[in-house]
Amino acid sequence: MSLKRILKAESVAIVGASKNETKRGYQTIRTLLDEKYEGKIYPVNPREKSILGIKCYQSVSSIDGPVDVALVATPARTLPAVLEDCGQKGVSGAVVLAGGFGEMGPDGRKLENEMVAVAKKHNIRLIGPNTSGMLNLHDKLNLVGLRDAPKGDIALLTQSGNMALTLITEAKIKSHKGFSYYVGVGNEADIRFHEYLEFFQHDPDTKAILMYVEGLRNGREFIQQAQKTTLEKPIILLKSGRTSTGKKSAGSHTGALAGISEVARGAFKRAGIIAIENSDELFPVAETLSSLPPIKNNSVAILADGGGHATIAADLLTDLGVKLPELSEKTQQKLKEILPAAASVPNPVDVAGGTDADPSVFADCAKIILKDPMVGGLLIVGLFGGYGIRFAKSLSLMEEDAAHRMGKMVRSRHKPIVLHSLYTSEKPHALDLLRYYNIPVFDSLDVAVKCISALADYGSYLKIYHPKHTLALNWSAKAKPEGDAIIRTVREDGRLALLEPEAKRLFALHGASVSRDIVAKSADEAAEIAAKTGGDVVLKIVSPNILHKTEAGGVRVKLRKQKEVRQAYKDIIENAKKYNPDADIWGVLVSPMAAEGVEVIIGTKYDDQFGPVIMYGLGGIMVEILKDVAFRVIPLSPAGAKKMIEETKSFPILNGSRGKPPLDKKAIIKLLQLCSEIVVAYPQIDEMDLNPVIVHQKGLSIVDARVILKTDDKCRMSQDRCQMSED
Amino acid sequence: MSLKRILKAESVAIVGASKNETKRGYQTIRTLLDEKYEGKIYPVNPREKSILGIKCYQSVSSIDGPVDVALVATPARTLPAVLEDCGQKGVSGAVVLAGGFGEMGPDGRKLENEMVAVAKKHNIRLIGPNTSGMLNLHDKLNLVGLRDAPKGDIALLTQSGNMALTLITEAKIKSHKGFSYYVGVGNEADIRFHEYLEFFQHDPDTKAILMYVEGLRNGREFIQQAQKTTLEKPIILLKSGRTSTGKKSAGSHTGALAGISEVARGAFKRAGIIAIENSDELFPVAETLSSLPPIKNNSVAILADGGGHATIAADLLTDLGVKLPELSEKTQQKLKEILPAAASVPNPVDVAGGTDADPSVFADCAKIILKDPMVGGLLIVGLFGGYGIRFAKSLSLMEEDAAHRMGKMVRSRHKPIVLHSLYTSEKPHALDLLRYYNIPVFDSLDVAVKCISALADYGSYLKIYHPKHTLALNWSAKAKPEGDAIIRTVREDGRLALLEPEAKRLFALHGASVSRDIVAKSADEAAEIAAKTGGDVVLKIVSPNILHKTEAGGVRVKLRKQKEVRQAYKDIIENAKKYNPDADIWGVLVSPMAAEGVEVIIGTKYDDQFGPVIMYGLGGIMVEILKDVAFRVIPLSPAGAKKMIEETKSFPILNGSRGKPPLDKKAIIKLLQLCSEIVVAYPQIDEMDLNPVIVHQKGLSIVDARVILKTDDKCRMSQDRCQMSED
Repeated sequence: MSLKRILKAESVAIVGASKNETKRGYQTIRTLLDEKYEGKIYPVNPREKSILGIKCYQSVSSIDGPVDVALVATPARTLPAVLEDCGQKGVSGAVVLAGGFGEMGPDGRKLENEMVAVAKKHNIRLIGPNTSGMLNLHDKLNLVGLRDAPKGDIALLTQSGNMALTLITEAKIKSHKGFSYYVGVGNEADIRFHEYLEFFQHDPDTKAILMYVEGLRNGREFIQQAQKTTLEKPIILLKSGRTSTGKKSAGSHTGALAGISEVARGAFKRAGIIAIENSDELFPVAETLSSLPPIKNNSVAILADGGGHATIAADLLTDLGVKLPELSEKTQQKLKEILPAAASVPNPVDVAGGTDADPSVFADCAKIILKDPMVGGLLIVGLFGGYGIRFAKSLSLMEEDAAHRMGKMVRSRHKPIVLHSLYTSEKPHALDLLRYYNIPVFDSLDVAVKCISALADYGSYLKIYHPKHTLALNWSAKAKPEGDAIIRTVREDGRLALLEPEAKRLFALHGASVSRDIVAKSADEAAEIAAKTGGDVVLKIVSPNILHKTEAGGVRVKLRKQKEVRQAYKDIIENAKKYNPDADIWGVLVSPMAAEGVEVIIGTKYDDQFGPVIMYGLGGIMVEILKDVAFRVIPLSPAGAKKMIEETKSFPILNGSRGKPPLDKKAIIKLLQLCSEIVVAYPQIDEMDLNPVIVHQKGLSIVDARVILKTDDKCRMSQDRCQMSED
Repeated sequence: MSLKRILKAESVAIVGASKNETKRGYQTIRTLLDEKYEGKIYPVNPREKSILGIKCYQSVSSIDGPVDVALVATPARTLPAVLEDCGQKGVSGAVVLAGGFGEMGPDGRKLENEMVAVAKKHNIRLIGPNTSGMLNLHDKLNLVGLRDAPKGDIALLTQSGNMALTLITEAKIKSHKGFSYYVGVGNEADIRFHEYLEFFQHDPDTKAILMYVEGLRNGREFIQQAQKTTLEKPIILLKSGRTSTGKKSAGSHTGALAGISEVARGAFKRAGIIAIENSDELFPVAETLSSLPPIKNNSVAILADGGGHATIAADLLTDLGVKLPELSEKTQQKLKEILPAAASVPNPVDVAGGTDADPSVFADCAKIILKDPMVGGLLIVGLFGGYGIRFAKSLSLMEEDAAHRMGKMVRSRHKPIVLHSLYTSEKPHALDLLRYYNIPVFDSLDVAVKCISALADYGSYLKIYHPKHTLALNWSAKAKPEGDAIIRTVREDGRLALLEPEAKRLFALHGASVSRDIVAKSADEAAEIAAKTGGDVVLKIVSPNILHKTEAGGVRVKLRKQKEVRQAYKDIIENAKKYNPDADIWGVLVSPMAAEGVEVIIGTKYDDQFGPVIMYGLGGIMVEILKDVAFRVIPLSPAGAKKMIEETKSFPILNGSRGKPPLDKKAIIKLLQLCSEIVVAYPQIDEMDLNPVIVHQKGLSIVDARVILKTDDKCRMSQDRCQMSED
């Protein structure tokens, strides 16, 4: 069901309406009246006849007109009864302010479940509980204890009332932008983040979605929805509780589970979400992305009227991975024509006093710079807006002229300008003009840099995904009958782990080039297989009771001679029996020794928040000590797989180091996708580990493979998600 | 010579004094008069009789009283003559505003040198050229084009007029702190950064030093001075031009060389400088460090009136390496007694509405928390200051009460409180009170977090160094006669590189446990040495003409049998002759094969800005791909060596990974110091490379060593620095 009838309600019942001015049941009515809400207002309180001159009803069900939404200001324990009453009336949604539910432990959770059950029965959707409320600024539907939020085109979704207050205050003081909606999602007992996203995606009043999240209950659905939404509107998100200490605090705050940061980071990237880590940047980035076209080529020019700011901005942009291309010779030539000899023109451009007498030269420079095809966007840093204040009043008019011209330039060229000005707090008119043209203006250089880099990030994401209008995800990967049979056999044996030959067989079925391993049942057989294989071989114990093969002395490598192979077979069997006298030994796997190359690790796991996710990293200390791994939610697109590899710090190693030739990155991408497909095709799989995979100049070798199945319980719990499809 | 007579001048000549209101030669006199400068003002202009009612002189030398400092507002080309004139008078210092010197290329550099020569001749010290000027706020000595800088106890030193303007504007708008001095160092043609530092260290009006630096001309002297200064006063520094793009911009701005960022970062750490990367944090951190006692135990508690802010703050503090210890049971118990049941008390502390009716409860909580010995400082985040605004006017008085109590608490407990408030911009009186007690208040959560973490960083630095009042640096390491002889021989041979046996001998002389390598002159001799050595040996070519031994086929490892050793000897000699038919072959080095362990790299080089510096990193890809290395300026203290190792990402590997035992970190520290000593003792050394060094559970093996000497030219150029000592 669409949330439209709730978020754009045309009639509101206030349950717990009150004459006491300190109560939400009074304040809400007062606010709706003051702000001239055009819908119907129905106070509900059995003990009052009328409140603020409006007729008061005994119950929701006794209201004589239709009711879209109920704001419930009564305590937690009353909720089941209140919702029964709402159900009688056919109310679409309820905003439940009360705390004392899931966030308070088992008793609260029980009450929350009871409330949700009543709501479900009557098809009532719930916002909250434990929420500060909901606000639709365009329809003046204000169901939150806040009267001065500025109206605009940013939808705000948060899990913390304080953060909402922070962001709204910031919008008011520092920008000219505002909000289309605010929703405090509270405990997300019913309506979840992804449902709000879907609504905002199609809402014409909303241009960007700003989120503060502590924990996601349905990370997977959220990511699925977000990747559709971000193709149309940017999502800017701060996820706190990244660190274990932060998590502790988030835990005690909303009772939501804060997720592992690497997994979340990978999930957000995959969905094109702009993830923010510093709260100062949150609103400004949303302001910028809701105002300006994204940058298509990850390249920015800096225009400055002093060296210090330009140098700092260049440092920070480089840190953020944004390119500062040298301007074309033609561009540099044209700049030289209008700037003094001391000016620096390659990029950053430093006007060196060239704007002192006439700051409208800023617009001349901007025009020349934005015309350069190398430049995707322009960051102006320094004193613009302050020339009239600092030097001579008459310069103000020239600044205003420049502002008008730059504003029109952005519109016609579809390239953004972001401005930093030391004089923002003095509110010069030129800066208001820039904002009128949707050019954001910041007093912080760091924030301005972050904002233009976010335009570049978002543009790069859209460039990869948008033209195709699809993420090319293989959601329809199908299980093979033989694969199903392997898994069935394992389960029938009462096992959860596939043995190496079983796991490799499963991979081979789906097209992975695994080595042709054969299980030998005797020393002679092993020697015979080795001889046929040619070259060095590896022998590994095969037993459902021995998962840690090396630890059990069950692995011998680099064997060639018949004698060596026979002896190794005997040793392995002996060691295995010593290690676990009761082990059921199936034999010894004889594999060709993998050629030299670089070790990588690929794994998948089932994440509590995001469902199946896939991990990639370089082997050895890179994973163990540096945790240099990348995560993505499954299924994985080819572009996603490529990005994943590229974002690890160790990536340059694949391009060849110490004079070595480059390695087969395409083979890794193919294998990542194949793993993703297998996890989609066999929802019974809990975890997989390909460790190590040795990558060669051409192709790769899967040296060991491990697949762990879900327990029956876990399989049941995750069933709906296992079967979820893209559409 | 002390800078006191310049920076605290009691008489000023204005060279280029003018009646034209748009000229600095007018404005400066106007400002000095308006601001009631108590010293003497002498306008100098041969064409005027008087300016602003003050007698005007034909020349500086014709002034009848003594002149401490001259502000020179005339163009670059006039400077030599002006300084001659000043010299006649016995002027101590000149502030040279004009640009057109070293920053403009060779011609400008020539003029700059000429000017400096005249100044030297007359013992005149120069500020600038190419500076915005100098300002001493306590003595109202304003020689800068800026009239509204707030007075306070922060000394501001910058290389960019824009950044000075930025910081002064920020101070005015956002804080109640101000400046003791501002100096625009300009081209640093004469007075250098470190000389200003020395002055400010002893200046009673200055409590902290705030710097914006693009390039340091005398990095080494700067670091030496800084490490003395930071034991008494904090230095807060933003060094821009870190990245290559940033560097390009800095280069075209001031003509100063921006240094390699890793070297600079290591140098700043060693000197206890608080290095800042985001310009938003620069003034706030200086404000904080000039106001509050540092945190002694790197441990902070968070006090919040809402979950969102607490969670974000906890994330950021953890990222910054600050500990958030769980409060003691006693502390938690006491907090529970005054807070509602829903409050979270372990740390972060969330009052959960416990301050709604009475915000003075903040002070009660702060008192309990600061009493906990686990807690070194307190960060308060959220709405404090806004209770009176948001809820009821009467709450303002309770907030003021809390502010008074918290202010006194900081004074008596010597533990800092930093406050974030959403209501900063509304300027509630309670926040002014906090500032009165030197508790800084920020509207940015990120900035507040950074500020308290800077207090922790500075406290940790002082804890290591301050008690001893010495950095325990071995500046007096002396050359050994035999070491001098080795170097002399190499130079007499016309070589710059020490061969491996020579380098190892040098290390052995200073106590390094290098292997007993012997150079064999024949295959038989090699076999004989190998037999005596016992175990596996390594053979390496020794030739002054072959520096890349492996490339030349000049290395063979893991040899034991007599036959193998003989054959290897022959192969190596043959390969070497093939590689370079003209090579002078001294023989083949026979070394015992090093035991297994982890490879590390130690190196030294001579940095243009910081003089000799030392590098440490883990070998292999960690250095090659990840550039995971740490730098320090030489000489190195034991604590510095330890810190250096600990700050590499790969550090955990030394503690043992994959179940391996920990390695001998003390041996690495010892070797780092030994390298530092050798570089101090033999100033002829340009670069050294110990690569690889294999670290064992006990001890380490220096497998290969390379020492490169300076050319005669470089030796001459760096002579003064080579001989520089600690005092």
